Amino acid sequence: MRVGDVAIGGRKVVMMAGPCSVESPDQLLATARAVQEAGAVILRGGAFKPRTSPYSFRGLKEDGLRMLADVKRETGMPIVTEAMDTRHLDAVCAHADMIQIGSRNMQNYTLLEEVGRLRKPILLKRGLSATVEEFLFAAEYVASGGNDKIVLCERGIRTFETSTRNTLDLSAVPVLKKLSHLPVIVDPSHGTGIWWLVPLLARAAVAVGADGLLVEVHAEPGKALSDGDQSLRPDKFAAMMADLRPVALATGREI
Amino acid sequence: MRVGDVAIGGRKVVMMAGPCSVESPDQLLATARAVQEAGAVILRGGAFKPRTSPYSFRGLKEDGLRMLADVKRETGMPIVTEAMDTRHLDAVCAHADMIQIGSRNMQNYTLLEEVGRLRKPILLKRGLSATVEEFLFAAEYVASGGNDKIVLCERGIRTFETSTRNTLDLSAVPVLKKLSHLPVIVDPSHGTGIWWLVPLLARAAVAVGADGLLVEVHAEPGKALSDGDQSLRPDKFAAMMADLRPVALATGREI
Amino acid sequence: MRVGDVAIGGRKVVMMAGPCSVESPDQLLATARAVQEAGAVILRGGAFKPRTSPYSFRGLKEDGLRMLADVKRETGMPIVTEAMDTRHLDAVCAHADMIQIGSRNMQNYTLLEEVGRLRKPILLKRGLSATVEEFLFAAEYVASGGNDKIVLCERGIRTFETSTRNTLDLSAVPVLKKLSHLPVIVDPSHGTGIWWLVPLLARAAVAVGADGLLVEVHAEPGKALSDGDQSLRPDKFAAMMADLRPVALATGREI
Amino acid sequence: MRVGDVAIGGRKVVMMAGPCSVESPDQLLATARAVQEAGAVILRGGAFKPRTSPYSFRGLKEDGLRMLADVKRETGMPIVTEAMDTRHLDAVCAHADMIQIGSRNMQNYTLLEEVGRLRKPILLKRGLSATVEEFLFAAEYVASGGNDKIVLCERGIRTFETSTRNTLDLSAVPVLKKLSHLPVIVDPSHGTGIWWLVPLLARAAVAVGADGLLVEVHAEPGKALSDGDQSLRPDKFAAMMADLRPVALATGREI
Repeated sequence: MRVGDVAIGGRKVVMMAGPCSVESPDQLLATARAVQEAGAVILRGGAFKPRTSPYSFRGLKEDGLRMLADVKRETGMPIVTEAMDTRHLDAVCAHADMIQIGSRNMQNYTLLEEVGRLRKPILLKRGLSATVEEFLFAAEYVASGGNDKIVLCERGIRTFETSTRNTLDLSAVPVLKKLSHLPVIVDPSHGTGIWWLVPLLARAAVAVGADGLLVEVHAEPGKALSDGDQSLRPDKFAAMMADLRPVALATGREI
Repeated sequence: MRVGDVAIGGRKVVMMAGPCSVESPDQLLATARAVQEAGAVILRGGAFKPRTSPYSFRGLKEDGLRMLADVKRETGMPIVTEAMDTRHLDAVCAHADMIQIGSRNMQNYTLLEEVGRLRKPILLKRGLSATVEEFLFAAEYVASGGNDKIVLCERGIRTFETSTRNTLDLSAVPVLKKLSHLPVIVDPSHGTGIWWLVPLLARAAVAVGADGLLVEVHAEPGKALSDGDQSLRPDKFAAMMADLRPVALATGREI
Repeated sequence: MRVGDVAIGGRKVVMMAGPCSVESPDQLLATARAVQEAGAVILRGGAFKPRTSPYSFRGLKEDGLRMLADVKRETGMPIVTEAMDTRHLDAVCAHADMIQIGSRNMQNYTLLEEVGRLRKPILLKRGLSATVEEFLFAAEYVASGGNDKIVLCERGIRTFETSTRNTLDLSAVPVLKKLSHLPVIVDPSHGTGIWWLVPLLARAAVAVGADGLLVEVHAEPGKALSDGDQSLRPDKFAAMMADLRPVALATGREI
Repeated sequence: MRVGDVAIGGRKVVMMAGPCSVESPDQLLATARAVQEAGAVILRGGAFKPRTSPYSFRGLKEDGLRMLADVKRETGMPIVTEAMDTRHLDAVCAHADMIQIGSRNMQNYTLLEEVGRLRKPILLKRGLSATVEEFLFAAEYVASGGNDKIVLCERGIRTFETSTRNTLDLSAVPVLKKLSHLPVIVDPSHGTGIWWLVPLLARAAVAVGADGLLVEVHAEPGKALSDGDQSLRPDKFAAMMADLRPVALATGREI
């Protein structure tokens, strides 16, 4: 499967990185350049943001999509961004190379059916309390529409433990790979919710066989409009990349 | 708050009952008459059905809505039925007296925003792994759009226990009532997943202070197209109603 | 089954109440008299206290047992108190009419085997994350030693929800009663962790068919050495008892 | 900290391996030699076995301890084995170099206090639903008695997911190391419950920074008296060791 020029599911572990939310053209471009230089090959950035409270920042919407398109032109990086609603799908499709279906929408079946009619790659995130079986059924909703370009993303499940935001279920990676033919990536940012844990769990994700990572990066996490606690500064991201390369090689992969 | 002629949130415990899925005009009418005779005052029935597998029966859709409208004309019972997508909302609104937002869509924020613009009562079901706080934030999405006709529904949460389909969290009922001004009802059918448990947990729900119950009834549960295991036969539903009346009285309520 | 003069598992819902911890002779006697007057028939009180932190108050131990024995002589109430260790069993047996095995020890198999050799009633509390099946296997450890005087106690399970201390699983009550011949009681104090929820969940527990309740009562909850947040003042306990009687009658029981 | 000659908590990732249960002298010696040859430095083997059902095989008890002592003499490998009860502690201490406190006993406080009085290393396994905070408080029970030779073991927590036996919480490893000064090891056998997942999660555990691994090995898993499904055959264990070495090196460790 290809997202732009990038192959997913092969020997190479695919790094997707960028800010949780697109906040401004400058923020996005600077972050994109930093993560690209460190080795990321796909740019993530949220324009439509699902937020628990209606009073939180909910994304720049169409403006955010345009900024993503601009930065793609500048950097050449393919874009992955979330679609939350069937009505936004045309706008998101116009700019994105890969469409993310977020955890809260993993069982939004009308949305799954709609993206099943597209021929764009879909990044499907596991629901907060979805079993592996339900996760694969959600993928089946997409596939049964004819779109088999699906990447599964483990991003932590809800448990009783509160010292991390979610409990990253790394066992799910090989289980999903055994039960399906789909690439499986890991989001250690949401999976832990704590920036200093991200590089360590990223290492574990590579070691367990993940086909890619999705990582949140922000130049000034303390000022981020969303998810600052789990965002890496660009220098920490670069250090993490350096740290991951030998682990990938040790398991017969590359980054 | 009123749904048709029915007041919710007062002294009277409101019984909503009917089949999980609308399957045929005859099935729906017969079930409606049976539950009405036994004391149910609102008819439930699914036309758009969210199902874990895309290969399961997913509802009669617009045809199901029309059957609900016909049975409403025959019986006078107001209708509650689920909307799964912003695009179906006009059709659902045309026929339903109360719009159900299902568990899987509790954090489908664009859908919440859309129903927030309506002036119809909304039955908002708790997500499978939603905290009480997240549940109230979902209600806030609806209310912040101007629609404060919201009924909350506890329907079981996901835990490690597998002897029941979900774990019915009856403590949430008084907690939700304390933290908000909204009526709170209980769905013991989904909450347990097992028909013979439904009347016992219904009794507990009334005792804990629920403002209503949502119960699945099917004439032949073994042949139901969805959720047969948790559906009561009409005679069992009538027996349950008889059983609930003294419990309601014992707690200063009526059914 | 009888605990002293009190039959458990019959028409009568058995009220067990008292302080979380035995703190002093005066505290215990005053509480015992208050709960007895309100209708409690078994006195609970902890002498050996399992506590998460080693630096918390861990009970008066043998002194606490002696205070329980003294108050039993004064009031005639049978005593239920916890044994945490095989080595304390002789001392606990000398004074208690019923021996509690706490949640943390539900799978302390050597302790279960030892109390299986006794002929005293055992109050076995469900482990924090024990399935119904594991709970019944724990009872089987006791029964296989020859002691079939076992009362099961649902006391809340650990879930993701944090608005209550635990999630009280009232569905487990009828499930346990169907799968075994044993009486099942409910502890709404630990089940909720919040005093004002206790009377409401007690009502639900009676409605669902519990054979008894275990409730924590303290004259001055703000000064309790353990579990003050979930303890009822004696007047609230008496009000709860008055509230429960019609619910019990409405379900064919008595208190 | 040292167990026999083996340092734990340094640069070297310590491999502990052996059968779930000691079954016979021949089984134990053959397994010990195989895992030793592959690089394991501590021998695990259960003599006292906590089992959910009283009718399962519950270990060879004192006979098992003697077999462990014999194999230690033959191979020179230090022994780690579980103590379930204060009364067995003398016997276990006589033969074991490190005493395991199992998950079910993580909050068996009298047992924790007793091993706190010893000067032997303690392997403390996380309870099935213990938070990181409760786990550290359990360690504090041991330490407050004067025994600070404690190794923590993450072995999977109970969640809603059923495709694995437990959910291995690898994030807990760096969290525990940050909050305490104690070595942290991982048990991928119990953490997954599935033999073919063990080498992959072992790799992730090393990558996340575990100080050691505890792995179940059996010559004929299909005939094992306990936990056969999660036991590796000796050849698979050797292959896993070969696989782990470059991952350890890639993260600045050795095996």
